[in-house]
Amino acid sequence: MAIENLHDLFVHTLQDIYFAEKLIVKKLPKMAEKANTSQLRAAFERHAAETQEHARRLEQIFQSIGEEAEAEECPAIEGIIEEAEELVAEIKDPETRDAAMLAAGQAVEHYEITRYGTLAAWAEELGHREAVGLLQKTLGEEKATDAALTELAATRLNRKAAA
Amino acid sequence: MAIENLHDLFVHTLQDIYFAEKLIVKKLPKMAEKANTSQLRAAFERHAAETQEHARRLEQIFQSIGEEAEAEECPAIEGIIEEAEELVAEIKDPETRDAAMLAAGQAVEHYEITRYGTLAAWAEELGHREAVGLLQKTLGEEKATDAALTELAATRLNRKAAA
Repeated sequence: MAIENLHDLFVHTLQDIYFAEKLIVKKLPKMAEKANTSQLRAAFERHAAETQEHARRLEQIFQSIGEEAEAEECPAIEGIIEEAEELVAEIKDPETRDAAMLAAGQAVEHYEITRYGTLAAWAEELGHREAVGLLQKTLGEEKATDAALTELAATRLNRKAAA
Repeated sequence: MAIENLHDLFVHTLQDIYFAEKLIVKKLPKMAEKANTSQLRAAFERHAAETQEHARRLEQIFQSIGEEAEAEECPAIEGIIEEAEELVAEIKDPETRDAAMLAAGQAVEHYEITRYGTLAAWAEELGHREAVGLLQKTLGEEKATDAALTELAATRLNRKAAA
């Protein structure tokens, strides 16, 4: 698709984050299996369910602007996940691996936070009212997940890994 | 390098962000050339200078913990930058390209924000006092750059691109 104006860029970026959400849905359960603590496993499992809802919400946004829901390959999320998988596979110590998984989870969240923040601003600019509300809802949930991972990291896992 | 504990993970992640900063130093001037408005060009040029300082500060951190300053390939930043370059090369309309460049700049900032946030927490945990201060200083500057890009996006460029 040629990108000639902000509408095209908006649709392209929706396709990019739609690809990312679908990839994350696939990867999170595998990550959850590798968690050492039940808290981290639960956090990843909870976010997997939430991510499925985010993908569904994107389909609703595509529909609301009269576009097909299509996923476009997103090298950014592929790079972030590739780096996470390589690192996690390499670490044998369970507490250190949990610290790395938390950091990887937060890198994924930050990618989503920046994309949803941009998309919400563009939707506002383009006058897509329904999309603005849906994008801001997801943005709020990604920020809450990032904050939950920060808390988990601060209170338990890092301390253990340093012990 | 085998990662056996939080110290090793800390050093590995320093090497990852050191690679990222050095790559960003190389890419930013090329991005600045493609900016349509003088404000965006100036923002990218200013951040290029700041990024060089961040790389230098990382060298100081490696030294403070008795480790060699080494860069380790970082697939995450490579993916984020590859995506940005492909997109920017594809867009002919100058206002729409500026909107895409702002979004790409913010994706880079968010990657750095998450990594420096994690590194500062780990440095704290590991008792590396000097590193904590330096990492938090860079973290503050990355957040300020992200906020400046948000403001630039909100006030001028998106409105133009939608016109």
